Amino acid sequence: MPLLVAFAGVDSGPWRVEGIEAVSGDPVASAACLSVLEGPTAARAVEGAVWTLRGVTSNERYVTRREHEELVARQEPLGRPESTCAALIAIKKSEAWWDLPQDERRHIFEESSRHVATSLEYLPEIARRLHHGRDLGEPFDFLTWFEFAPWDAAGFEGLVQRLRGTEEWSYVSSEVDIRLAREKDALAR
Amino acid sequence: MPLLVAFAGVDSGPWRVEGIEAVSGDPVASAACLSVLEGPTAARAVEGAVWTLRGVTSNERYVTRREHEELVARQEPLGRPESTCAALIAIKKSEAWWDLPQDERRHIFEESSRHVATSLEYLPEIARRLHHGRDLGEPFDFLTWFEFAPWDAAGFEGLVQRLRGTEEWSYVSSEVDIRLAREKDALAR
Repeated sequence: MPLLVAFAGVDSGPWRVEGIEAVSGDPVASAACLSVLEGPTAARAVEGAVWTLRGVTSNERYVTRREHEELVARQEPLGRPESTCAALIAIKKSEAWWDLPQDERRHIFEESSRHVATSLEYLPEIARRLHHGRDLGEPFDFLTWFEFAPWDAAGFEGLVQRLRGTEEWSYVSSEVDIRLAREKDALAR
Repeated sequence: MPLLVAFAGVDSGPWRVEGIEAVSGDPVASAACLSVLEGPTAARAVEGAVWTLRGVTSNERYVTRREHEELVARQEPLGRPESTCAALIAIKKSEAWWDLPQDERRHIFEESSRHVATSLEYLPEIARRLHHGRDLGEPFDFLTWFEFAPWDAAGFEGLVQRLRGTEEWSYVSSEVDIRLAREKDALAR
């Protein structure tokens, strides 16, 4: 079932903000920490939040049966104890992207940009969860949450840079990249 | 851009309820009339509503470029003066459907069930707009609003019956069919 998730910029919380970069488009205000709320509480206003970004997990939109099975076989869940690094990458795509029919979006996503094939190379080290915001009227169409160990941070950077060089990314009109860290024994989520 | 739409069962409104049928799954309470609200007002509680169903127009999920162009070339807008008949068909699909990868849902939707090809036969007579509710946490995944002239009512019935006989419909776990009428000079929406 779809799960509503809110990411809130707050004064204190489990994830410490290490940096916020407006890669393209409008910036997001600075915040000391990030809180992640799930389910019914994610719909409510977050007390003291500088900003709150929301998205909902949903059914897969592009992957084939074969890609789905490869992803499931190799991915690991959020919340691993050694995953003390995280990133929240918020993206808005252009109207030109949304006006494309499904077959052409799929072609750009995978046959041209190899979004799944590239991501698979970084499993199981990089755990991720995708949240959809466009149909909720949110400023960002996608919020992708990544978790990884400190020793996989360079690998994660490689994944991000490869995706940003693809044809798919030419349809990204706005992107904010928020990097986070937590103490090993802190409650992560 | 996605448009939030609320369909509210009310005591008085532009569309008179002619019948509510629970085709499968849970029924919807009876109401005398239906109001259709769009945009920011659709997010608010509707005064005096027996029930309110919400959905959002969104990007297309299955159609190819060729199908998209055929649909655009033949379809007509909502709100035609002669469209004094309407139907709101609310559908929930099973978890088995949502667990399928995109390529298998597409195959069932069109190559097996011919959802687009069949619908094209009923254009331009039957105007329609699809609204997505699943990611909003709504009880129905899809709310499809149809408008047509009284002399096309039998044709519309044929479309509905053909779709209900498809493989795609074997994944429908809940369906409510609400039929409506308005006076020719009433404000339709």
